[in-house]
Amino acid sequence: MPVKNGEFVKLEYTGKVQETGEVFDTTDEKVAEEEGILVENKSYGAIPIIVGAGHLLKGLDEELIDLEEGDEKTISLTPEEAFGERDPKLVQLIPMKEFKKQGMKPQVGMSISSEGVTGKIRSISGGRVRVDFNHELAGKSLEYHVKVAEIIAGDEDKIKSMIELHYPNPKIDIEKTEVTIEDGVAKISMDEMAKFDNKPYMDITFARFRIARDVWENIDTIEKVEFVDVFEKKAPEEEAETEEVPEVLDKAEE
Amino acid sequence: MPVKNGEFVKLEYTGKVQETGEVFDTTDEKVAEEEGILVENKSYGAIPIIVGAGHLLKGLDEELIDLEEGDEKTISLTPEEAFGERDPKLVQLIPMKEFKKQGMKPQVGMSISSEGVTGKIRSISGGRVRVDFNHELAGKSLEYHVKVAEIIAGDEDKIKSMIELHYPNPKIDIEKTEVTIEDGVAKISMDEMAKFDNKPYMDITFARFRIARDVWENIDTIEKVEFVDVFEKKAPEEEAETEEVPEVLDKAEE
Repeated sequence: MPVKNGEFVKLEYTGKVQETGEVFDTTDEKVAEEEGILVENKSYGAIPIIVGAGHLLKGLDEELIDLEEGDEKTISLTPEEAFGERDPKLVQLIPMKEFKKQGMKPQVGMSISSEGVTGKIRSISGGRVRVDFNHELAGKSLEYHVKVAEIIAGDEDKIKSMIELHYPNPKIDIEKTEVTIEDGVAKISMDEMAKFDNKPYMDITFARFRIARDVWENIDTIEKVEFVDVFEKKAPEEEAETEEVPEVLDKAEE
Repeated sequence: MPVKNGEFVKLEYTGKVQETGEVFDTTDEKVAEEEGILVENKSYGAIPIIVGAGHLLKGLDEELIDLEEGDEKTISLTPEEAFGERDPKLVQLIPMKEFKKQGMKPQVGMSISSEGVTGKIRSISGGRVRVDFNHELAGKSLEYHVKVAEIIAGDEDKIKSMIELHYPNPKIDIEKTEVTIEDGVAKISMDEMAKFDNKPYMDITFARFRIARDVWENIDTIEKVEFVDVFEKKAPEEEAETEEVPEVLDKAEE
C-alpha cells in the first residue's frame, strides 16, 4: 500500500546542504557521529510523523506520497520548499554598547537570543555588531535522503506514535503507555513516570493538545482524547512504600 | 447525625494562644482583619477536612466526634496535643560571621531558613546569634473555637471537598469540576483552568495522590481515582481560536 496523505509513518532521514554537502540533521546515530553533530541524550532512529500534517518541511511531505514501506528516495528542496529565502531585514546592526550594558562580550560566530528569536553574530566593526536573525538554513537548497521505515497500521499504534513525537519527555516508555479506543474516545494512560515530570503542567497540556489534534484530524473515528492519571489503592505492604512520597513533598514545599 | 471518625465536614475555627489571647489562625476573614493577620489572596470560610485523617491537630480531631451539624465548641489543647513541647536542642548559637558570609544582617525577630527549616532570631550578643528552630507555637497551650458548619453527605461532594483541601491552585472553580463514580472508580475532570497551571506536573501529582488517598481510605466503595484531562474536537469556528495555542508554545520553547 503506497503512502498517502494523512498516513502515519516512521521515517529515517539525513539532510544536507546541497552546495557544501554538510549534514545538518539525521535520524541515524552513526551518521551524526561521523558528521560531528551527535547530540547527547537524543534518541536516534526512525521518527513517527503524519504525512501532510505539517510535521515536515512542505517539500518533503509532498515527496513521500506514493512511496511504499521500505522505499528510499533522495529529495532536493529549493530554499522556498525548505527554510525560505534570506530576508535582509533580519540582519541587524546593534551598537556595541547594548552588549556592554548587559555585560556581554560579543564575538563573531556567537549565538544570541533576543525576545525569543536567535541570531548569529556575523561581524563586528566600528563599534557595531552585525547580527543575523535569519534561520541558519535560509536561502539554502537542501538534499534529503529519506526512507519509509514503517507504515504504521492500527489506531492504537498511530496514537502511540504521536505520543512519541510530541510528548516532551524522552524518558517516557511508550511500551508502558496504554491506549484504548471506545465509542470515538481514545483513552491514554501514560507510563507511570510521566506523573513525576518536573515540567510545568501547562507545557504538558500543550503537548497533549498537539497529540489530540493530530489524532482527531487524522483518525476519522476519534473525536475525543482523554489523558488519564490513575491512582489506585495498593495492598498494605506496597502502600507502606508509597506513603513516603507526600512527606518528601511536604519538605520541598516549605 | 453526630460526627464520627472518617466524616467529611466543613469546619470554621479560630485558634488562640491560651496565655496571651493572641489569635494565630482563623477561617473567619473578619476576625483575621481585626487581629491583623489577614493574608491576601487567601480564601477564607469553612474548610473541608476529614475527621481523624490527620488534617487537624490530634487534639482537635478527637474533640469533633459526636458534634452535630451547626454545633460550636471551645477546645483547650495542651502543648502535647498541639505543636509539642519546646526542644532546647532546636535553639542554636550561630556565629555572626556565618551570616556575614552570606551577606545577611541578622536582626532580632527575623525569620531565617536553613535546609528547609525555619527559625527565628531571638537574640544577638557577643558575635553570636541565637536562632530558635522550634515551631512558633511549641510549648504553648492553645484554645480553639470550632463550628461544624456542614457535614458533607454524598460521595461526589466528599471527593470535591478533598480537591478543595489539597489542590494547590486556589483559582480552580470547584463548581466546574466533574466527579463521577462507577464500579469503585472515581473519575475527576477538573475545571478547564487546571490544565494551564504553571506548577511542575509532579507537584500536581503529589496533590492528586493526597486527594486519592483520602478518598479511598475514607469512602469504602472507592478503590481507584482517575484524573482525566479531556481534549475534544471542536466545531470548525471554535477550533480557529484554539489553533493559536500551540504556536505561542513553540515560541516559548525556543
